[in-house]
Amino acid sequence: MGGDNAPDVVVEGINLALDQVSGVRFLLFGREQQLAPLLDRYRRVGLVTEIRDTLETVSSAAKPSAALRTGRNSSMRRSIDAVATGEAGGVVSAGNTGALMAMAKFVLKTLPGVDRPAIATVFPTLRGRLVMLDLGANIECDANNLVQFAVMGEVFARKVLGLEKPSVGILNVGAEHLKGNDAVKKASAILQDSSLSIRFHGFVEGDDIAAGTVDVIVTDGFTGNIALKTIEGTSRLLSEYLKKALSSSPMARMGALLASPALRAMHAHVDPRHYDGAMFLGLNGVCVKSHGGTDALGFSSAVRVAVELIADGVNEGIKQDFVCLGSDGPNNSKMAAGR
Amino acid sequence: MGGDNAPDVVVEGINLALDQVSGVRFLLFGREQQLAPLLDRYRRVGLVTEIRDTLETVSSAAKPSAALRTGRNSSMRRSIDAVATGEAGGVVSAGNTGALMAMAKFVLKTLPGVDRPAIATVFPTLRGRLVMLDLGANIECDANNLVQFAVMGEVFARKVLGLEKPSVGILNVGAEHLKGNDAVKKASAILQDSSLSIRFHGFVEGDDIAAGTVDVIVTDGFTGNIALKTIEGTSRLLSEYLKKALSSSPMARMGALLASPALRAMHAHVDPRHYDGAMFLGLNGVCVKSHGGTDALGFSSAVRVAVELIADGVNEGIKQDFVCLGSDGPNNSKMAAGR
Repeated sequence: MGGDNAPDVVVEGINLALDQVSGVRFLLFGREQQLAPLLDRYRRVGLVTEIRDTLETVSSAAKPSAALRTGRNSSMRRSIDAVATGEAGGVVSAGNTGALMAMAKFVLKTLPGVDRPAIATVFPTLRGRLVMLDLGANIECDANNLVQFAVMGEVFARKVLGLEKPSVGILNVGAEHLKGNDAVKKASAILQDSSLSIRFHGFVEGDDIAAGTVDVIVTDGFTGNIALKTIEGTSRLLSEYLKKALSSSPMARMGALLASPALRAMHAHVDPRHYDGAMFLGLNGVCVKSHGGTDALGFSSAVRVAVELIADGVNEGIKQDFVCLGSDGPNNSKMAAGR
Repeated sequence: MGGDNAPDVVVEGINLALDQVSGVRFLLFGREQQLAPLLDRYRRVGLVTEIRDTLETVSSAAKPSAALRTGRNSSMRRSIDAVATGEAGGVVSAGNTGALMAMAKFVLKTLPGVDRPAIATVFPTLRGRLVMLDLGANIECDANNLVQFAVMGEVFARKVLGLEKPSVGILNVGAEHLKGNDAVKKASAILQDSSLSIRFHGFVEGDDIAAGTVDVIVTDGFTGNIALKTIEGTSRLLSEYLKKALSSSPMARMGALLASPALRAMHAHVDPRHYDGAMFLGLNGVCVKSHGGTDALGFSSAVRVAVELIADGVNEGIKQDFVCLGSDGPNNSKMAAGR
């Protein structure tokens, strides 16, 4: 029931996702009265989907703490509960991000050794793709949080992006090791001499996101969220300029017509809907957030992300890596030194 | 002598700038042996330019503190000295940013009431232009720093962008007043109920930069630097995608040819060289930094920025506004409460 266009885009999104994933079944938590007609319309969704009639919902304006306190019977909470009980392998929601994170943390708990989950997303780059985290779950982060994000991001890049030895960078205002705030400097020092067997590149800058200088970019949630939205805004601005340029004269319009298949392919490649699906990494369960304003195509991407996270065993990988950090989790001597 | 391509681009940049500014004279601090032949080549530059033979330079790798200590006879330092003595109205450099800021702060001092200068730049937006600051001078900022940036940015938008009542926003991870870190929340509270007569919009997000939601965006130097470079990187990525798309087939190439005048106009509009010239606001003197890798076109933009800052009396405006904040500068009761 979450997002601006629920529940229609959810069902339509599942329908699109079924073109690309197989052997997956869905539990839909929401108002049966609204959902049943949609399953009638999308028959193949109906065949693999079960409705759990849930009348209450979490509004997009709800404060996370309030949602946590009063939303025990909401569709959001009940879908997360299904992950906790093992009935579902993961949850996908286009609803209130803060509420989803608060409930998921409360119900699923973090993986052993993880202090705070992080929001991660895959970005297109000049060289391929990279994953960046945190994108907004943790406004303030210390060095240990950043190191934990590095571990989780590295597992993701191996398991989901299929990279054998992904490189990891910390987002900073310069590549030199003296630059930046205390948290990034300490995190860098920890990653540099740790026994984590992470291929640590060092600091990267804002333009390294699009350049694809590394495979994993680690940052605090404040900076990461602003970088994410700056990318979205810049893309929109440049698309707008391009559209204007290509309709500015009869010649330009003719040119645009001839180039339209190529331009369409390009737009599809950078279409943010293909990158919908922000993962909450570090939880004891798969939880994926689709954009609040998503459409069916975007929601189908988020569904695919959840399916991949489950199939690729990302959480198992994170668990293993945190065990390797030491028997007492990430707070072994080296990491504690970074606090 | 600063930047990757000095001193050639400096002289060529002045030559280009002379197409757009008039009545301006230049002092060139650097090696006469290198500069004299360039002035012979660009005769009209030679007519309005005087060389001050200076053998020492500040390297791009120098630490700011070291440059400050040992660079007293460098071209960078002597050009700043010329501003302090009143011999020059302002200084433009493509050299080491940290050294330039450290020397400018030491020699020129900050304006009364300004604790820390900020780096500001103008960005193109869907609605026109906006100014954002700080872009990297201050890695960590408290609420008072941010409020001071708001005042300085607002003066700039009035004086240089020519806006009567510019709106000011603080960069944050959400528009709601409960979002963000302490510094932005306190700064927002101060600006909301201050007697500054600033049109304060509230919080803005990363995508509001390109959208042009406000005329002035205030942020700490860490976030601002990453946003700036994220914009640069994203623009480069999308240009690359566009180039690839428009050469992907004979039809696309034909289309690109027909649309080429329109595409060229668009590229010129977003060309970062037209936005070169980062201003150090809050100093008792005009100081503008051109991109280290700048070419002549970029350097000419930086020269124009300096000329505008001087002609429009931006520093006078900032001085006045800080006087209005109270007889004891920005540390009056309201602002001190925000610490």
